[in-house]
Amino acid sequence: MNTLFTYVRDSFIPADQASLLIGDLSIQRGYGIFDFFKTLDHKPIFLDDHLDRLFHSAAQLRLPVGKTREELKTIIDQLQRKNNIPDSGIRITLTGGYSPDGYSLSQPNLIITQQPLLFPISPECPKPFRLVTWPHQRQLPETKTIDYLMAIWLQPYIREQGADDVLYHYDGVITECPRCNFFIVTDDDTLVTPARNMLKGITRMKVLQLAGTKLKTEARDITLEELRTAKEAFITSTGKHIVPVSHIDGHPIGQITPGPAAQWLNGQLYRLVQDISHPHSHQTTSK
Amino acid sequence: MNTLFTYVRDSFIPADQASLLIGDLSIQRGYGIFDFFKTLDHKPIFLDDHLDRLFHSAAQLRLPVGKTREELKTIIDQLQRKNNIPDSGIRITLTGGYSPDGYSLSQPNLIITQQPLLFPISPECPKPFRLVTWPHQRQLPETKTIDYLMAIWLQPYIREQGADDVLYHYDGVITECPRCNFFIVTDDDTLVTPARNMLKGITRMKVLQLAGTKLKTEARDITLEELRTAKEAFITSTGKHIVPVSHIDGHPIGQITPGPAAQWLNGQLYRLVQDISHPHSHQTTSK
Repeated sequence: MNTLFTYVRDSFIPADQASLLIGDLSIQRGYGIFDFFKTLDHKPIFLDDHLDRLFHSAAQLRLPVGKTREELKTIIDQLQRKNNIPDSGIRITLTGGYSPDGYSLSQPNLIITQQPLLFPISPECPKPFRLVTWPHQRQLPETKTIDYLMAIWLQPYIREQGADDVLYHYDGVITECPRCNFFIVTDDDTLVTPARNMLKGITRMKVLQLAGTKLKTEARDITLEELRTAKEAFITSTGKHIVPVSHIDGHPIGQITPGPAAQWLNGQLYRLVQDISHPHSHQTTSK
Repeated sequence: MNTLFTYVRDSFIPADQASLLIGDLSIQRGYGIFDFFKTLDHKPIFLDDHLDRLFHSAAQLRLPVGKTREELKTIIDQLQRKNNIPDSGIRITLTGGYSPDGYSLSQPNLIITQQPLLFPISPECPKPFRLVTWPHQRQLPETKTIDYLMAIWLQPYIREQGADDVLYHYDGVITECPRCNFFIVTDDDTLVTPARNMLKGITRMKVLQLAGTKLKTEARDITLEELRTAKEAFITSTGKHIVPVSHIDGHPIGQITPGPAAQWLNGQLYRLVQDISHPHSHQTTSK
């Protein structure tokens, strides 16, 4: 097996040696942001959308990226050539840097890692998830920070409840899962997703765009009560596209899982990323 | 100048080379705990209290410390001998470890650093602080996690407001500053400090014990409104003992700063730590 490389502080080094000094503000104070995108057949998927969000997150936390968008793309391209992983996840992390006093911001440290994708992207929805709800409002929720303290702390609770992931709500209004956005399909066939106090995922954005050709869409508050009458629920993420939700807090959602909206949207998402990763095969096979 | 050493993952290494691999859950997900105590004339101050809290924090985040209390004391003693810094701050950090998937807990990484104390501990209160309030509830507030995202994010706001630190409240109830506990003296000479949804500092505990010989004490909710009638306010920490508070959100607190309670308590704290760091000189000078 080839050596896997990681980009850290302007160098490509073997991934198993990539490190930061312990004065870094991520280690000292949990301060940093990141973004995560995938490649399929070596093609970065929705890279500009992810870089838009990376620059937004960095600005929110006052972390100068230190590279232009084009420079980042060049580094990502170099990393891909070194690692040669066709279907991969690439994570760009920007930390608070080596703080002189363990509290003040310093020049950020930029890290880019690449690993094989954990789950294959498929036209079929993956196995449905059971969710369990938990009252929690993430701090700086519209910024993709490295703060997953509550998510990781809740792992044993999630397992005890026989669930696969946790769905946060606050004052009875649903926001998100730690790494996924949440959608329901209402009684009148409207696709609804939360609009505030959560991170706006790139897959969420694509789903809203794709759905608009076939379903009414709304971005607004969803209450816990509204789950009772939902026809479908699903969650979205870069790594898994659309995961149907079969149960929330033990209560079944809808009649069949995956429901027709989840299945159709997942198919559309698959076509969309195939168009990027295999543009020629699409041109020859599409009508 | 001598090389400063840091203890990382079972080794003493030069502080400027101490590092963690980037797969550590502190870097990936902001997951870790720490504690911080001081030494005066080479004597650790309130070490057992700090180790009690360290083991509590570690248990709350399900991070096995991997060392007994006595083993930690031995490591701390070895670190002190190597570094030879009489008045120092020692920080023990325990992270989520090298996660196989960037999300699951692994064997924690233990780091112990020592640095010279930033501020001399003195029988006189330091220069008063101006505080500015901010609505925020820390997550897992009774655990000393590395999560200081909001505190560091707020630094420019604190400076813009002409303040020295931020005082968190939630629904109008005061909790704490990011690294200090908060006290007021009421109209009827009762010393009051918040009791819940905040980290219980070791200096806070000592202040409550010392005050009890002279002042009524209460640990209970303090509302923002109650600040208007407070005769004194101050904050407490391991590094600075008692810092008087002169203004909160621009409004002056009490008539004179430091007030008599802050001054008396700071003197008592000074005597208490002198008793530990210089037991003989105390025995010969005390009545």
